[in-house]
Amino acid sequence: METAQFTIPLWLDLTAVALGGIQGALFASGFRGERRLDLLGVAIIGILIGLGGGLIRDLLLDVPPASLQNNWYLVTAVAASLLGMLLAGPLRRLNAVIVGLDALVIGMFGAFGTSKALSLGVPPVPAVFVGVAAAVGGGILRDVLMSLPVSIMHVGSLYAVAAGVGCIVLTALHLLGVPLTIAGVVAVAVTTLIRWLAVIFDVSLPEQRMLYRRKVATETSVLPVIRRPESSD
Amino acid sequence: METAQFTIPLWLDLTAVALGGIQGALFASGFRGERRLDLLGVAIIGILIGLGGGLIRDLLLDVPPASLQNNWYLVTAVAASLLGMLLAGPLRRLNAVIVGLDALVIGMFGAFGTSKALSLGVPPVPAVFVGVAAAVGGGILRDVLMSLPVSIMHVGSLYAVAAGVGCIVLTALHLLGVPLTIAGVVAVAVTTLIRWLAVIFDVSLPEQRMLYRRKVATETSVLPVIRRPESSD
Amino acid sequence: METAQFTIPLWLDLTAVALGGIQGALFASGFRGERRLDLLGVAIIGILIGLGGGLIRDLLLDVPPASLQNNWYLVTAVAASLLGMLLAGPLRRLNAVIVGLDALVIGMFGAFGTSKALSLGVPPVPAVFVGVAAAVGGGILRDVLMSLPVSIMHVGSLYAVAAGVGCIVLTALHLLGVPLTIAGVVAVAVTTLIRWLAVIFDVSLPEQRMLYRRKVATETSVLPVIRRPESSD
Repeated sequence: METAQFTIPLWLDLTAVALGGIQGALFASGFRGERRLDLLGVAIIGILIGLGGGLIRDLLLDVPPASLQNNWYLVTAVAASLLGMLLAGPLRRLNAVIVGLDALVIGMFGAFGTSKALSLGVPPVPAVFVGVAAAVGGGILRDVLMSLPVSIMHVGSLYAVAAGVGCIVLTALHLLGVPLTIAGVVAVAVTTLIRWLAVIFDVSLPEQRMLYRRKVATETSVLPVIRRPESSD
Repeated sequence: METAQFTIPLWLDLTAVALGGIQGALFASGFRGERRLDLLGVAIIGILIGLGGGLIRDLLLDVPPASLQNNWYLVTAVAASLLGMLLAGPLRRLNAVIVGLDALVIGMFGAFGTSKALSLGVPPVPAVFVGVAAAVGGGILRDVLMSLPVSIMHVGSLYAVAAGVGCIVLTALHLLGVPLTIAGVVAVAVTTLIRWLAVIFDVSLPEQRMLYRRKVATETSVLPVIRRPESSD
Repeated sequence: METAQFTIPLWLDLTAVALGGIQGALFASGFRGERRLDLLGVAIIGILIGLGGGLIRDLLLDVPPASLQNNWYLVTAVAASLLGMLLAGPLRRLNAVIVGLDALVIGMFGAFGTSKALSLGVPPVPAVFVGVAAAVGGGILRDVLMSLPVSIMHVGSLYAVAAGVGCIVLTALHLLGVPLTIAGVVAVAVTTLIRWLAVIFDVSLPEQRMLYRRKVATETSVLPVIRRPESSD
């Protein structure tokens, strides 16, 4: 196997951590729930999204977590979370940024997870599983810590599916002899594009639609006749 | 130790995965919450119940997860989840099937967890712990991902207790020199029987009783005066 | 490194487990939610608080969990949980005991986590992360299993911060050449003191304030004008 030599370059791994940290902090900053998060809460979510996927990947692979092998992962995740908090004000209405970053981040975490698994000799099917778990795992942890419904369970078909297709493409290219680096770039592009297209055709954020639908449902139950006088839905 | 040679046969492990996958998908298909699960959500729960217990066991034992060592575990779990979805229609009213399968599955996961722990040289008390964690862990992950109250915390005495008694019996027989294979069969039978008897004497599904009670409480809160005209509490 | 020789003495580790078990069971016994916990639920929380921090630490460090290497951890955790249940009656009004114990427990788990990480060669920043995760991890698992809002996300600044400062102090002293034993004692004292002072100046339990505030907020939303006639906020 050529894969024994393959390792994700540190700068690339840290880029994913940074994008995840910014995205997580933006998401958490924009959260308006019954109980708002304090600054530390926002930072925790940023760190979790930045590092959670890699931690889940390494736990599943039974290897020491990459993010604990040097100081840079945590420093990057913390700095990215702080940056995300600062950007949350100016970017508040730019949900597209949150979703766009998110698509890129799940693409990268998925590709890193699957390629690390393959390079450790994990068979194709579980390698895809590790990638998908790494891609969506951070978001699951986020939802659990924020007491939100776990989004991939309800509105996430095209979310987890986007991650899954990317990881399958990577694995297929690898089996066909394509170097992991090239296969990984293709996989990130595939996942990100599927996710972006899904969001564009859905117009709004799946997560927000869900929360919105819930809110509407609550209001609707009080005044259903007034709100929808002529709609037959 | 004779236990160093002991490994769970693949076909038996896959049987537990398949039964777990079917049971998980049946449970998730039957779920009628505020937010229904989509097909992927049902499949995730099936895969989680099929593989979750084994993953938790192997994380606790610090060994590479068995389910990631070959392609069969995930293929089995996915196929079983799809089968569970197909069966959910015809079996909708047969809650007995869900509960019956569940009892068998926790018995098997408990026995596999404890016997694998013992065969790795883990002392008796933590070996029982690993078995119970493997038996109930999948259900905990399911409840967290489905945003349900974690059932073993509230109505689960005889659930976790059934798993615990089975694992203790297995460990005791092992200490008495009984081969793990025989001890395992006895343990599965003990756990399954205790759980079945508990359900039969309770008549209804514990989980459903819990959800029902919650609903009643909500309705009651609308008419507290009528229900408690003289109570001072 | 002198740290290769360093291991936490068993009696000290078991002391932390026992204090955690008592604290967890006291907390869970005092819980009055929509669905009360049964005895097993209280015991599970006790065991979780006693062992959860150490399990998370060892999972992150990719070493076999210390609590599964001999029988004493689980025996201690179970016995401590039972003791906590028995003490819950007489101590019901002594919230100070719960908070006081909790501060000591997070101090100990944080110090053990960071010092074990350092002794395994983990760099300073991730060593602090492991300590904080060990300190607050048990409480996160407790909140998730009890379907409570995860407390460190909302009111926990001084909770996680207290753990963090202790772990940073320990790491700094270690880098300055102070033996881990002395650095650990200082770290426990620092974390416990910060947490105690935070609670004393806040007067009431953060967790309880949160639940209380939620209740008040619900009531307030009905009569906002009466409660804030002149406030412009």
